[in-house]
Amino acid sequence: MLDTFFKPQSVAVIGASRDPEKLGYAVLFNIQDAGFEGTIYPVNPKADEILGLEAHASVLDIADPVDLAVIVIPYPYVPDALKECGQKGIPTVVIISAGFREAGREGLERERELIDIAEEYDMRLIGPNCLGVIDTDTPLNATFAAGMPPGGPMAFMSQSGALGTAVLDMAMAGRIGFSKFVSLGNKADVSEIDLLEAWGEDEASRVILIYVEGVPDGQKFIKVARRVTRHKPVVAIKSGVTASGSRAVSSHTGSLAGSEAAYKAAFRQAGIIRASSMEALFDFSRAFAYQPLLQGDRIGIVTNAGGPGILATDALEHAGMEIARLSSETTQSLTDYLPGAASVGNPVDVLGDALADRYERAIELVLNDPKVDGLIVIVTPQAMTEIEKTARAVGRMAQESDKPVLGCFMGEARIAAGVDVLWEHGVPNYPFPERAAASLAAMRDYRCERGRPVFEPEPTQECVPVVRDLFDRVRAEGRVSIGDSEAWEVLKCYGFTVPESRLAETAEDAIEIAEEIGYPVVMKIASPDILHKTDVGGVKLDLRSAEDVRDAFDLMVYRAGRYVPGAQIWGCQVQQMVANGREVLLGMNRDPQFGPLVAFGLGGIYVEALKDVAFRVAPFSREEAGEMIREIRSYALLEGVRGEPPADHEAMVDALLRISRLVTDFPEIVELDINPLMVFEEGKGAMAIDMRLILSS
Amino acid sequence: MLDTFFKPQSVAVIGASRDPEKLGYAVLFNIQDAGFEGTIYPVNPKADEILGLEAHASVLDIADPVDLAVIVIPYPYVPDALKECGQKGIPTVVIISAGFREAGREGLERERELIDIAEEYDMRLIGPNCLGVIDTDTPLNATFAAGMPPGGPMAFMSQSGALGTAVLDMAMAGRIGFSKFVSLGNKADVSEIDLLEAWGEDEASRVILIYVEGVPDGQKFIKVARRVTRHKPVVAIKSGVTASGSRAVSSHTGSLAGSEAAYKAAFRQAGIIRASSMEALFDFSRAFAYQPLLQGDRIGIVTNAGGPGILATDALEHAGMEIARLSSETTQSLTDYLPGAASVGNPVDVLGDALADRYERAIELVLNDPKVDGLIVIVTPQAMTEIEKTARAVGRMAQESDKPVLGCFMGEARIAAGVDVLWEHGVPNYPFPERAAASLAAMRDYRCERGRPVFEPEPTQECVPVVRDLFDRVRAEGRVSIGDSEAWEVLKCYGFTVPESRLAETAEDAIEIAEEIGYPVVMKIASPDILHKTDVGGVKLDLRSAEDVRDAFDLMVYRAGRYVPGAQIWGCQVQQMVANGREVLLGMNRDPQFGPLVAFGLGGIYVEALKDVAFRVAPFSREEAGEMIREIRSYALLEGVRGEPPADHEAMVDALLRISRLVTDFPEIVELDINPLMVFEEGKGAMAIDMRLILSS
Repeated sequence: MLDTFFKPQSVAVIGASRDPEKLGYAVLFNIQDAGFEGTIYPVNPKADEILGLEAHASVLDIADPVDLAVIVIPYPYVPDALKECGQKGIPTVVIISAGFREAGREGLERERELIDIAEEYDMRLIGPNCLGVIDTDTPLNATFAAGMPPGGPMAFMSQSGALGTAVLDMAMAGRIGFSKFVSLGNKADVSEIDLLEAWGEDEASRVILIYVEGVPDGQKFIKVARRVTRHKPVVAIKSGVTASGSRAVSSHTGSLAGSEAAYKAAFRQAGIIRASSMEALFDFSRAFAYQPLLQGDRIGIVTNAGGPGILATDALEHAGMEIARLSSETTQSLTDYLPGAASVGNPVDVLGDALADRYERAIELVLNDPKVDGLIVIVTPQAMTEIEKTARAVGRMAQESDKPVLGCFMGEARIAAGVDVLWEHGVPNYPFPERAAASLAAMRDYRCERGRPVFEPEPTQECVPVVRDLFDRVRAEGRVSIGDSEAWEVLKCYGFTVPESRLAETAEDAIEIAEEIGYPVVMKIASPDILHKTDVGGVKLDLRSAEDVRDAFDLMVYRAGRYVPGAQIWGCQVQQMVANGREVLLGMNRDPQFGPLVAFGLGGIYVEALKDVAFRVAPFSREEAGEMIREIRSYALLEGVRGEPPADHEAMVDALLRISRLVTDFPEIVELDINPLMVFEEGKGAMAIDMRLILSS
Repeated sequence: MLDTFFKPQSVAVIGASRDPEKLGYAVLFNIQDAGFEGTIYPVNPKADEILGLEAHASVLDIADPVDLAVIVIPYPYVPDALKECGQKGIPTVVIISAGFREAGREGLERERELIDIAEEYDMRLIGPNCLGVIDTDTPLNATFAAGMPPGGPMAFMSQSGALGTAVLDMAMAGRIGFSKFVSLGNKADVSEIDLLEAWGEDEASRVILIYVEGVPDGQKFIKVARRVTRHKPVVAIKSGVTASGSRAVSSHTGSLAGSEAAYKAAFRQAGIIRASSMEALFDFSRAFAYQPLLQGDRIGIVTNAGGPGILATDALEHAGMEIARLSSETTQSLTDYLPGAASVGNPVDVLGDALADRYERAIELVLNDPKVDGLIVIVTPQAMTEIEKTARAVGRMAQESDKPVLGCFMGEARIAAGVDVLWEHGVPNYPFPERAAASLAAMRDYRCERGRPVFEPEPTQECVPVVRDLFDRVRAEGRVSIGDSEAWEVLKCYGFTVPESRLAETAEDAIEIAEEIGYPVVMKIASPDILHKTDVGGVKLDLRSAEDVRDAFDLMVYRAGRYVPGAQIWGCQVQQMVANGREVLLGMNRDPQFGPLVAFGLGGIYVEALKDVAFRVAPFSREEAGEMIREIRSYALLEGVRGEPPADHEAMVDALLRISRLVTDFPEIVELDINPLMVFEEGKGAMAIDMRLILSS
């Protein structure tokens, strides 16, 4: 579907201009200059010929078919031009022109008009308000950027066009090569999701880079990315993460930024490697693009200087990588070969006077050690160092190996030629050891993601109709929240264990129920109008006698009526008192971009005061539920401290999966809390003690 | 004292050589080549003349006084050469030669010999095993590095010489300028502490950069750095932070790396800005070196692209900075001046077609806004962008302002000339917005440090002799740990409140004491041989009757005898039961580099399972004690959750200061825990319930 954006046979530039100051000139010039081999049609009613090409007044005047149109005219004329593209049967259109959604309410309406036209004629759009599209293989440069980047295995999509200009300028200086480059602009039609799908299958692209401010359809984004990241690394930077950042996004492209917690969860679930800065985005991507994938955590370091070796070691360990313990054969060979003062442990210090041959032999030995999965080669420009010759040795060794090798030639003037040699051999260089280490850590993260089983959500449960009926009944009564007994009905349908509990309409009922359940019991006011029962004194624990129960009933009913005048009061729920478990909280809120965001944390102060909560977007897998539990800082308390047995891990995982299913089955649930879920020791399960559930109105 | 290292009138190069492959040639060449204006004496018994200078067989053959000697001869000959320097009365010597402490035990002995000789003749040494010394102002380049870096306000000291070569190479490529550069090598004599002291007073150095692997005298380092950082920023990178990193350090220079917790605390207390990578070290230092100090947290951003503006915003907020809210006057002026589509909030988006004049006006308005403390100017190379002209405008505005301005010209090829122009105006450029933001955050951190009152430890308390006697008594008995009653004596001497408590030798005693104190009571086995009382069932809480007390006494004495055969048992301590407070832990361990490292955390699971502990090196100030308490993740629990009143903050601060004093007064305390300190609600103080204290044997 998107092929003709990148590999068209013919391109029309609507708004092509003879004035070199105009974008319409730059676009036409770039298409020609990059060596596009198909037919180019300038479209401009006021010109006969531009840049040596015959101009047409309209695309409708072109005799042959047109695969791609690029529109660079002022916004008032765009809709008509787009209509003509439709009439002409052009399948793909890039709209560079600005003045749409980013320009306020009227702009948004203009953009909707474009979408309607595209739908009517079954066209795909990139933009509006963008820099354009590049394919270095075709070659096609349908942008107004200053030049064409070198070719290479990196595919880059950016919501920000200006950021794109900076990135292309970096590429032009060398050491970054692109397969494809798309500035997405306002994303009226084509979004990150479409490009991810297309580039996932594109053989010219080994790694996909994304600069994103907001994702249009979070659930679909996760689903598509999950599939792509199984076989191709995707590295992304998400901006607008913090409060002010999000404000800036809103004023920038008008996209609604999802909350940081949701993005963090979604990217992780999608298997996307998240870069925390532009620099990291390119650092990580260069490693993915040019080196083999890292197959393990054990990194070797060969250096001619102790200090940088330590910095690399620190950075690797900080990122959770292993400093490889070299095999005794390797250590022995290094000892035999290197001077006595050299360090043959890892980092291997070949000493300041090392020439290229010493580096080469050390690299060969370390890289061939089966206990090493990847290598960083550090070179400081000391008095005798052979920069270029060493770079050639590194490049040769890297090309012969199926393990990733990253360069860390430190300095600037003296090492520049060496860095060029590395680049010719496809070895990315990082000017500081910390950046090389972080890039290997990103490779490790990707390997972990890639190794996961593909997740397919489970089919809908058979008990759903029961819950459907219940929700319909609740909404028919004009309510959006459900009562205790209803909550338990829902929970039981989804496989939760709940305390024994019955509704007492009178104090006498309550005593009778309590005697049947057995003391001690818990009592709670039963009213669909009271959400926070504790706040109105509507919960009493540890009631040990008929007298306790009678007092509690009368008091709570009296108070509820006083605090919430007019509340419908059903009576009191009399409930088995459950103790001796660890209390956890399961919750769900709907994120505007990603949908159901499920939360897990230890109950009480851990969630409230310490904000120690893990999130995932539902639906999620059993494995992801387990990770979520282990992710909280206070996980040690669930494993058991001071001789306590561990809490029942499987029971928590099951509970999370049930919640995931429930909120996926019923999009009308806008908010939900199970607080607490009482988790017993290993093998003894868990019990949902209380639930709050709000339906959309 | 160190002056002649940097500003000598005359330099002797011992080991000067005619062979360009030798370091002795490189050093002599560099001194000449950099334009040293004093007298240079090559010393080499086998030559008459080197590089046009008359050579001498020994420094003793030189007629005139020599200020500085540089030794570059094989290690066996170094001691004699050094002795001759002493006899000649040379005050300062740089020993470049390797083969000393870094080369194992024999090397260490050779190094000790050097130290003895230096002491005998009252000489100061830099090295051995180093790259040398540079002063760009003198000018003096007494290193074997490949060239002289440009002059500038940055003073750099490095424990790693090779790292130094890389840094000098970076400098040679421009955009970093050094006042002084010292490769410290093995630090036989001159260490970071000496250079900090000297450079603190050096007017040519606006910022001090340190690459350090281990600090020789932690307490003195903190004391000196504390003083220097009051008026001059010090930025440091500490390597060997993690476990493997520390191993690498040990094999590298043989220095013992202090624990990461101790370094983190010490650097913070010393007011040193810590860089987490080499890149950050130079990023931060360039801001300090070339721009005025940041006077507040409010940052303005002027950009021609939305995306990078958001990235800057995110990074600033992430670092706890404020995105300046522009005054209404500024906003109005921007609205009047900028095109309608521009964003006049902060970030100020001057739009992709902004020429230099539009940038200039926007920068002027934002920079002059009293609600703005510093500025980042982002420039992406778009179609019409005037890179150099814009850079000139930025430079001009920055030079006129007393607020820091950092550049973020993004890209590479097209922006290079602009970056040069910025540099000519003293405006550091950062290729990505995140790095500019992090550098401003470092400036903010420094401003906070600098604003602190200078800390002077309080004088020793008068009660110390009592504790001294007690410790002497304990050690005279051959014990290293103290009992409960002794612990309380110590605590009371230092102003702690302790529970009412008395030793009972028999069960009858215990009952009598309990009746006097009042039930409930706590009982603990009293034995100098039992440290972990709980482990042997030696603690009983909440005893409410004479019978409880008798049972507890008999049981604990029986158990103690059984679990710790031969233990000396004094009886049981009967103690007032204290409840209703929050339990915190105060502890101290001696760090091998920094000495007494005091820990603070919430008691129980928070310290044990969640490792939520803050550290400071004693002695520390009242303010630092307060920061320490606020630093723990679970601080919210001390502030009070769920309507609890806050815990008594001042009481915790007082307790920390008392511990600080105690462990400073008595270096023989090697370990100490007050666990728990029971902290009551605000205004109600705290009580030390239990203490463990170990003396050095």
